[in-house]
Amino acid sequence: MCELFAMSARFPTDVNRSLALLRPRGGEIGPHSDGWGVAFYEGRAARIFKEPIPAAESACLAFMSDYGFVSRLVIGHIRRANPEKFGRSSANTHPFERELEGRSWVFAHNGKLEGLRDRPDFASRRFKPIGDTDSELAFCLLLDAIASAGVAAETLPRVIETLAPLIERLSGFGVFNFLLSDGDYLFVHAHTRLSMLRRICRRDGCEQEVALLATEPLTAEEWTPLSGLHVFGAGREILLTDVVPA
Amino acid sequence: MCELFAMSARFPTDVNRSLALLRPRGGEIGPHSDGWGVAFYEGRAARIFKEPIPAAESACLAFMSDYGFVSRLVIGHIRRANPEKFGRSSANTHPFERELEGRSWVFAHNGKLEGLRDRPDFASRRFKPIGDTDSELAFCLLLDAIASAGVAAETLPRVIETLAPLIERLSGFGVFNFLLSDGDYLFVHAHTRLSMLRRICRRDGCEQEVALLATEPLTAEEWTPLSGLHVFGAGREILLTDVVPA
Repeated sequence: MCELFAMSARFPTDVNRSLALLRPRGGEIGPHSDGWGVAFYEGRAARIFKEPIPAAESACLAFMSDYGFVSRLVIGHIRRANPEKFGRSSANTHPFERELEGRSWVFAHNGKLEGLRDRPDFASRRFKPIGDTDSELAFCLLLDAIASAGVAAETLPRVIETLAPLIERLSGFGVFNFLLSDGDYLFVHAHTRLSMLRRICRRDGCEQEVALLATEPLTAEEWTPLSGLHVFGAGREILLTDVVPA
Repeated sequence: MCELFAMSARFPTDVNRSLALLRPRGGEIGPHSDGWGVAFYEGRAARIFKEPIPAAESACLAFMSDYGFVSRLVIGHIRRANPEKFGRSSANTHPFERELEGRSWVFAHNGKLEGLRDRPDFASRRFKPIGDTDSELAFCLLLDAIASAGVAAETLPRVIETLAPLIERLSGFGVFNFLLSDGDYLFVHAHTRLSMLRRICRRDGCEQEVALLATEPLTAEEWTPLSGLHVFGAGREILLTDVVPA
């Protein structure tokens, strides 16, 4: 299993404190010692840093925590490999990224999807895994569905309608907690564990709104456990009942 | 204009010395002060580090130069933006990357392709630019051609046959020196400037072979100026006359 982390904000902000809290979970106080990755969006492009080594030992992650990146959307992942199946490598390290319609899409997964890669009816078409994980294949399948439905990133209702049945089928293979984004929206699937914290503060005359997501609460604040598919944008949850009629 | 750098080797090796030589050209002794990027292949996956800031000022690049990455294939780029047209941003920073058939393809360009983005007959289809540069569009067009010809990365003759006429048409828009790779092969187009240096040495009983490519020779050794399309693999040039009958 792995740790997931994400942030959606109204205005760009740093995630240094969250990264610092997450970092020791990768191999120091936690068992997630096979890799780490963080994606920072800059508009439609994602800047991704990842390494197939324990986060707690990574000089690069320590360096980044001090670097002061700011972003409106961040996705992070700390990985514990399934040792019998997938080795440590960059290709197997989350988050994964693909371009679709001129946007970076980014994905990180917590859980296992046993036997997914052995099922010919779940082979991906346009997007193909570079590494060996079921996680990357699941990402490719989600993007195949979005691409073949011809949905633009802006048309949220159609994206949700397209993804919902596929997410349900993929969840049947095991545990499918994930974070997915196109840079504007953050799609969060809480299958077995994912919690959310909202923060609102006023600074320089602007009301900043931030939503933090994590597999385990990172602070002593009151995090809300989630269940099912949620969508966040600009620091707020977008209620799916407003978007897709029941 | 920009500086390009690449390395193809028989066995994994580091590029620390080359990076150290390249780094001051980004804004210290050279005018290439708008960004830098380096892609290190690990098998079919590329690890890419890039920043839209002067290479000479980058603590991240300085850090990387000390980090000791080893790889068989590396592509580097130091960027000077065309200030009237494209700003500094991650999306506009080379090298660019896309997945095709389960491999990372990486591209970096030196030159200008004036008006390419204004030509509807040169719009890309499957692969779309995330940023604003003509360079990224040219990369998308090269990959569209490879994807639509149904060529696998392994079938070098068909890749060459597919790319050659498109490279000629794109070169007509200006200056088109580029580096392109799928992780095995390094495609080098020397339109106006690109030089190559071969090094062979014996270490631990193995004969290491390295080919270095750069827009300007990085050392006082005797670099060979190139012209036209060349392909390198495992540290050697692959003669196209052996691959594609004239």
